[in-house]
Amino acid sequence: MNDQIFETVVTTQSSEGVAHIAPMGVRYQAGRVVLMPFKPSSTLANILATQHAVLNLITDTRVFAGCVTGRRAWPLVPAERIHGQRLACALNHVELRLDELLDDAQRPVLRMARVHEAGHAPFVGMNRAQAAVVEGAVLVSRLHMLDDQKIASEMAYLQIAIDKTAGPGEHEAWGWLQQAIAAHREKAVAR
Amino acid sequence: MNDQIFETVVTTQSSEGVAHIAPMGVRYQAGRVVLMPFKPSSTLANILATQHAVLNLITDTRVFAGCVTGRRAWPLVPAERIHGQRLACALNHVELRLDELLDDAQRPVLRMARVHEAGHAPFVGMNRAQAAVVEGAVLVSRLHMLDDQKIASEMAYLQIAIDKTAGPGEHEAWGWLQQAIAAHREKAVAR
Repeated sequence: MNDQIFETVVTTQSSEGVAHIAPMGVRYQAGRVVLMPFKPSSTLANILATQHAVLNLITDTRVFAGCVTGRRAWPLVPAERIHGQRLACALNHVELRLDELLDDAQRPVLRMARVHEAGHAPFVGMNRAQAAVVEGAVLVSRLHMLDDQKIASEMAYLQIAIDKTAGPGEHEAWGWLQQAIAAHREKAVAR
Repeated sequence: MNDQIFETVVTTQSSEGVAHIAPMGVRYQAGRVVLMPFKPSSTLANILATQHAVLNLITDTRVFAGCVTGRRAWPLVPAERIHGQRLACALNHVELRLDELLDDAQRPVLRMARVHEAGHAPFVGMNRAQAAVVEGAVLVSRLHMLDDQKIASEMAYLQIAIDKTAGPGEHEAWGWLQQAIAAHREKAVAR
């Protein structure tokens, strides 16, 4: 049985203060937040350079769909206790400090200590369309590995929850994913 | 385009103080919480009798899977401003008063005013397995309308997120759903 993985967004900045926003599945272990960024990645480089990161807990799934479709500029506000920034749309955020590093050729394990956390908006309930956008974003991030039939059938299944339970934000995010899939298909046809 | 619907749990009590726990998709409109309980239902009868209800915002999906598989006793704690109870596992809860009733033969529309709300635990991020349990619970609530092939293929798809991202609570909830589907299939074979 694996650990429970939460879909979050990790914000970091370079030593020059350039922000980087990355969706990331994280684990919670013994009070620490465990990140496994790929090598190489801006998230890994930034944490090694600054020792810090911010964990953003969000339900605005436009950030997930946006980041896999080339929309990486999301409103940020300064962190409270560390040099860094959090997503403006975060319901909660946790400011993190690198506590332990287990190196690996592909995915080093970074155990991050909690420096500070704060809530900004209440959780207003689970939404099936938000979950569908997250699944669609996972799908879009793997388009090069999947055949057209599998992509079409999964998108058709996820569309049901979009039709029944989405608000404007989920519809916008879903449209970006559909565009990315259409563009991928056109490129494949052109080849 | 429909309104955004959130999957929540509504707790009510009868005039004798007997609690009732019901998963419910709700809408938020102009600051009010819109419930559409079926007629007849304990939730509707209780709200008409007491004028109150509690909206529970949860991520412990055992409650959703439990309620569709006959496990309706979940730990409750007293509400703060109204006669009523909330789920002990609620991340947030909202105490509600009936503000406006639009009657309907099947699903009356109850517009509920917010009397009080409180947070109890932070939102720690979206989890794909939690979403899979919610989809599985929707499926189980509709077993009588679906053919075996559709049920099997949807459960197989949802199993992927369970395998990759579930914690013990989601595994437990998923097991209940799988048992319910197996029992349904056995009954169908017996007929």
